[in-house]
Amino acid sequence: MSAFDPSTAKIACIGAGNVGRAWAIVFARAGYDVSLYDQDTAALKAAVDAIAENVADLERYELIQSAADLKNRISYDTDLDICLSQAIYIQESVSENIDVKREVFQQLDSATAQNVILASSTSELLPSSFFNAASRPERCIIAHPVNPPYLIPLVEICPGDATAQGVLETGKQILECAGMAPVVLAREIRGFLLNRLQAAVVGEALHLTGAGFCTPSDIEAVMTKGLGLRWAFIGPFMTSHLNASGGYKDYMKVFSDPYRRMIDDLKLQYPWKDGLFEEIEADLSRHIPAGAVSDGQSWRDRRLMALLKHLNTAEKFTVNLE
Amino acid sequence: MSAFDPSTAKIACIGAGNVGRAWAIVFARAGYDVSLYDQDTAALKAAVDAIAENVADLERYELIQSAADLKNRISYDTDLDICLSQAIYIQESVSENIDVKREVFQQLDSATAQNVILASSTSELLPSSFFNAASRPERCIIAHPVNPPYLIPLVEICPGDATAQGVLETGKQILECAGMAPVVLAREIRGFLLNRLQAAVVGEALHLTGAGFCTPSDIEAVMTKGLGLRWAFIGPFMTSHLNASGGYKDYMKVFSDPYRRMIDDLKLQYPWKDGLFEEIEADLSRHIPAGAVSDGQSWRDRRLMALLKHLNTAEKFTVNLE
Repeated sequence: MSAFDPSTAKIACIGAGNVGRAWAIVFARAGYDVSLYDQDTAALKAAVDAIAENVADLERYELIQSAADLKNRISYDTDLDICLSQAIYIQESVSENIDVKREVFQQLDSATAQNVILASSTSELLPSSFFNAASRPERCIIAHPVNPPYLIPLVEICPGDATAQGVLETGKQILECAGMAPVVLAREIRGFLLNRLQAAVVGEALHLTGAGFCTPSDIEAVMTKGLGLRWAFIGPFMTSHLNASGGYKDYMKVFSDPYRRMIDDLKLQYPWKDGLFEEIEADLSRHIPAGAVSDGQSWRDRRLMALLKHLNTAEKFTVNLE
Repeated sequence: MSAFDPSTAKIACIGAGNVGRAWAIVFARAGYDVSLYDQDTAALKAAVDAIAENVADLERYELIQSAADLKNRISYDTDLDICLSQAIYIQESVSENIDVKREVFQQLDSATAQNVILASSTSELLPSSFFNAASRPERCIIAHPVNPPYLIPLVEICPGDATAQGVLETGKQILECAGMAPVVLAREIRGFLLNRLQAAVVGEALHLTGAGFCTPSDIEAVMTKGLGLRWAFIGPFMTSHLNASGGYKDYMKVFSDPYRRMIDDLKLQYPWKDGLFEEIEADLSRHIPAGAVSDGQSWRDRRLMALLKHLNTAEKFTVNLE
């Protein structure tokens, strides 16, 4: 039995906002004991209710066996020492502010044994900007999740300059034990992988709507009735691989030039024109009004749960050996 | 009953390759009479078999009522005049070569009445480069589908300089009657909408793998375990709208600066480094070998059918009116 077996190990989650409490669900679902820490009692109380609602949904969609068992594995702590005690891995999800991150990493570093992994949920701050607030940056990693983390399995692990190889590997194993799908970057880059690909789409989508080629709803349709259907189960490279009878290289023999011409022609918009965000919100609000975003979030999460259930039972590819 | 009622109208599909025969399925599925034309008898024979296989799958996945009825609505013609006779709309899917397109558009234009719509499936040629081969470019549109068109509903309608507004509207209605989800561009742009967004992702994915930040498989995971799960049912703007309690404008108040920084930092790779395509194919081939692409395509299509069936029954958003 490894030292990070979910049935015997404890995880500390720091910060009880949307991200922190979703992490608590992720780790408790896998069988870990979880302590969710926040200095703000009201935030912890809100987390209790939100987690109860989320795990009831998970049970309803048959994505977990027992909501009660999962909830029993989460404790809520305003005492940091109690939260950190015995934890093998700490997932930090405080606000995206460099000074706050540095202070919290310094604090976590001095309060825990040297073999404990310190992982940050940051989506945009670079490891090099705050890992050195810890006396042992070797044990620091980024573990960047996608919203909401208990429904979207991807997590990006990114090292800092000083992160030890063994820490990356152990962090990856702990996250795999937690049921996540980790990818490990070789070195830091702004936005890691996922948000860079997302920014590429958003930038060109802002150009196409801002320059009047189409409406925001058209962009939504292009994704949900077009690109997104394939991307739900095959990525951008596999999409090309399966679009030519001889595979990826064959595809690129024909489409390399068109791709060059298109990439050369993209005009990822920055800065954005005045009023564009208002225009986009007005269009989106015809479908989900800004005042109904909370209903929209619940709907999105139920849709994701139904989609995950579908994907879990979908046919895997196996080579036909005839 | 409108002039383009599927139960009384006829559609001509020119070219019996992958795209042309998928279009034949699309129109016949909706109830149109379809003539599929190719000058190559062997291509037509191959189309008969491929269509039989595809519609059998559609029937098995309960996406159509009767494969036999659908097949009965398609005739296969090597005589262009017979194919075009009585057709209200012509979908051209010949090879992506500007000289061939110009010749075919000139030919279709002179062989049909002036109120017939001439639509091209081209993915990359611009309307301005070949619509003027027709004496009446007013009646020409791009109707660019996504592979495979009978499973992916999006179609991009793009006008040329001379395309009449009424033709765009009628073309849109015919494609809607065919069960497709058309978006209409305001004016031409290279790659239209979908392939520009795809090129943005592919360009940055090539940069991230080419520069060694991650493997091709990592990019695949980022999409299929992350971004693609949301994008299967909400697009890039709605994703942001639902990530802040106050909606899109609220989200952009916080994330506009991070997005600017990321977009500014993207390095969509062009030209690509030597050996990168080989590296990507080697990685993809661990999942689906280049020699098994045809099995992979069948698997992709069955996965798409299962996904469509799932999405058809998924919960729609309705505002909670409490």
